[in-house]
Amino acid sequence: MAENDFGDMPVEEFRRHGHAVVDWLADYFEKVETLPVLSQIEPGSLRKSLPESAPEKGEDFDAVLADVDKLILPAVTHWIHPNFHGLFSTSASSVGVFGEMFTAAFDMKGMLWRTAPASAELEDTVLDWLRQMMGLPANFEGIIYDTASVSTMHAIAAARERANLNIREQGMSGRSLPLLRIYCSEHVHSSIDKACITLGLGTRSLRKIECNEGFEMIPEALHEAIVEDLNAGHMPLCVIPTIGTTSTSSVDPVDAIADICEKYNLWLHVDTAFAGSAAIVPELQHHFKGCERADSIVTNPHKWLFTPFDLSVLYCRDLSMMKQAFSLVAEYLKTSDESTVKNGMDYGIQLGRRFRALKLWFVIRYFGREGLIARIREHCRLARLFASWVEASPDFEMLAPVPFSLVCFRARPTGVDDLDTLNERIMNEINASGEAYLSHTKLHGKFTLRLSVGSIQVEERHLRKLWNLLSAHTQAEPTA
Amino acid sequence: MAENDFGDMPVEEFRRHGHAVVDWLADYFEKVETLPVLSQIEPGSLRKSLPESAPEKGEDFDAVLADVDKLILPAVTHWIHPNFHGLFSTSASSVGVFGEMFTAAFDMKGMLWRTAPASAELEDTVLDWLRQMMGLPANFEGIIYDTASVSTMHAIAAARERANLNIREQGMSGRSLPLLRIYCSEHVHSSIDKACITLGLGTRSLRKIECNEGFEMIPEALHEAIVEDLNAGHMPLCVIPTIGTTSTSSVDPVDAIADICEKYNLWLHVDTAFAGSAAIVPELQHHFKGCERADSIVTNPHKWLFTPFDLSVLYCRDLSMMKQAFSLVAEYLKTSDESTVKNGMDYGIQLGRRFRALKLWFVIRYFGREGLIARIREHCRLARLFASWVEASPDFEMLAPVPFSLVCFRARPTGVDDLDTLNERIMNEINASGEAYLSHTKLHGKFTLRLSVGSIQVEERHLRKLWNLLSAHTQAEPTA
Repeated sequence: MAENDFGDMPVEEFRRHGHAVVDWLADYFEKVETLPVLSQIEPGSLRKSLPESAPEKGEDFDAVLADVDKLILPAVTHWIHPNFHGLFSTSASSVGVFGEMFTAAFDMKGMLWRTAPASAELEDTVLDWLRQMMGLPANFEGIIYDTASVSTMHAIAAARERANLNIREQGMSGRSLPLLRIYCSEHVHSSIDKACITLGLGTRSLRKIECNEGFEMIPEALHEAIVEDLNAGHMPLCVIPTIGTTSTSSVDPVDAIADICEKYNLWLHVDTAFAGSAAIVPELQHHFKGCERADSIVTNPHKWLFTPFDLSVLYCRDLSMMKQAFSLVAEYLKTSDESTVKNGMDYGIQLGRRFRALKLWFVIRYFGREGLIARIREHCRLARLFASWVEASPDFEMLAPVPFSLVCFRARPTGVDDLDTLNERIMNEINASGEAYLSHTKLHGKFTLRLSVGSIQVEERHLRKLWNLLSAHTQAEPTA
Repeated sequence: MAENDFGDMPVEEFRRHGHAVVDWLADYFEKVETLPVLSQIEPGSLRKSLPESAPEKGEDFDAVLADVDKLILPAVTHWIHPNFHGLFSTSASSVGVFGEMFTAAFDMKGMLWRTAPASAELEDTVLDWLRQMMGLPANFEGIIYDTASVSTMHAIAAARERANLNIREQGMSGRSLPLLRIYCSEHVHSSIDKACITLGLGTRSLRKIECNEGFEMIPEALHEAIVEDLNAGHMPLCVIPTIGTTSTSSVDPVDAIADICEKYNLWLHVDTAFAGSAAIVPELQHHFKGCERADSIVTNPHKWLFTPFDLSVLYCRDLSMMKQAFSLVAEYLKTSDESTVKNGMDYGIQLGRRFRALKLWFVIRYFGREGLIARIREHCRLARLFASWVEASPDFEMLAPVPFSLVCFRARPTGVDDLDTLNERIMNEINASGEAYLSHTKLHGKFTLRLSVGSIQVEERHLRKLWNLLSAHTQAEPTA
């Protein structure tokens, strides 16, 4: 409860409650494995348990903390649970929480260098560290955005700007422009579609290129599409291969695609939001061949580099392209140091930017390059181990290769005709049980189970547990 | 330093370091007033003090924490300092830090209801609380984005979609469309220009309408512009009045503008990113007349509602318009509960969304409606008090009205011809001293000092201090 003045919580109160929150979180990290992965609440039940209006008077924070226990915790889906295997499981580490504590307390907005020098310079430093670890050339410079959706949207906007159509000033309405084209495979993330919607290109501008049996974009098909579009008078802008596609984590052949981009002067944006962190692992770097030829690359440390959400990195071979697309300095933002410093606001749509670099700095320093490599390597080992169980079982089959830590598979016991229904039932039953969380995709029309390995708490025993669950639910009769 | 295994920081270590971080922050809150407001470091000096590459081995967190003291703190510009009066000073409270601690530790991504039920339902709850406090009608539904730039971009995208040009699918290239038009005043935030760039409308689509002497959009001038555009075959889409403009915090006449929007069926988006929080103060609600007729309204609790950055709210009269513009459900995101729940990903470009509602819930509960009102009221009182000193002084003059907590003024001592140079010097000297931070704008061609009152720590004595500084620097000879 706030004191009867106009100030903040008294510092001694902050200290006392802060220690209580730290202890609560420590307990949480310790017990999360015992909690149901997916929240078991009914839709609407949390809302119903909360008052319909804000309290008139302030409350003591002890009461708020008690409600976190009673009301919020049961409504949490535990992304840090070692058996969270859905979507891409993420790897946030507890040291990253410390970063967010400072970031929230400083409350800096990294618009101008001077409004947040620590943010501007630490961002440049840690992104250069990460660039080196990923084996990208020295001329790549990075910028931090919130999510890959926003990073990719900025990349496509820069590609649109480089086409010399002056869309920045003249826009795309009230004039005649050829149909602009973006190319990606059919297994990409929906954020690319959304970027095309947002940027006014429309979903029809996005041409999805055929893949081979391994779910990798076929360069010849890309080439044909570009030639066809050129012949039709359209204007190709940008190609977006993915390293670690959302469906199967397949790897598009970036090097071959780069040849085509060079030939037709197209922007090459590599989406490796999920898998990019794996580029720090020496034996996995071969998957990233061709990235050094990209115009831009997105990777999300908040996915698989032990960094709490959100922190997405866009590396550009020529970051000034981003500035050209977005810089716009209002009078109230003019400063005398413009020529000597890097002002974050010049590189995107957001004016204010959180001090996100701090948590990534904490993570890299605490684990060290070796510690980060060891953990990603272990996740990949566990995924391959699980895949080996699938391969050895007569009741299961693999449905895609495993280049990183995602396994696509399904149950296929003898005597069952409708495998889609079976696998959907297995997934729903396991998810509903709270024991583990799996998600799905469709591959060649088949309902496919996706197992992602990524929690920093995951151990071999968790995959054993999931394997036993899968076997049990495959054998069992459907529950009502 | 990470243990020699594959896991996270041991829980007892997290507890120990976490307590140390809390104590560090408590000390910081206590002493921030004694630190220079603007960081005094030279550009590049932090970067030079950091290693050029990531450490190979993990380090103990104690070493990292020591570097926060030694390297990071001097590079921080202290936004929470009570003499931060630049741009819009922001009001983050320490209880909000607790919210960010849970948010980072849970690491939930609010894409689907099921991936973060607590986030989805708490967001609906606190946004409804805030809606009631702001006096908005019950049919307004909110959604949280990161920044006002992103909120406003979504609003304009929805306006673009409502024009029935099918830009979502067909895009704006390779077809013939009339020139689309957006209207705002000349004193708006640069984010509106950037949204037009991003959305492919281009800066020429943005028509800036003339203001009266009080820096308020002239409705008749807006009407004339729309008629002129219609006669020229252009298509008006959206009008964006601001309540609390960035330059002077002036208030555009929303009610009169709403009449025009209704007549021509235009989307009415009200930008009240800064001042919106003041709508909870009964005697200030008259500034917000007409908001109930808006299609969308953006307000930023991270500016003036004691909530750490970032948390921007977009209220829509018909939130389904946003879903229509942006929803797109990939196979791997399909769930069986789609019809019964609200999936955050359907309302914008970002798929993953941080659990931002928690910190706002903490803030509202800890301070209560009365506590929040009292603090905003006090900031406005302090700003008017400062304005009264300006008005009473022969050496200073006011340059704009003070509807909220921003004062626009300048020094005007007798015998000085070049007032622009004088005021710029005064501002630069005060800012360089670290004693306080002011920013500027240009009004009617005059270099204008902007004093924003908003830190939760600000007291009358801080404004006294600034007033003394201003008087001293006005009298003083220029420093070299």
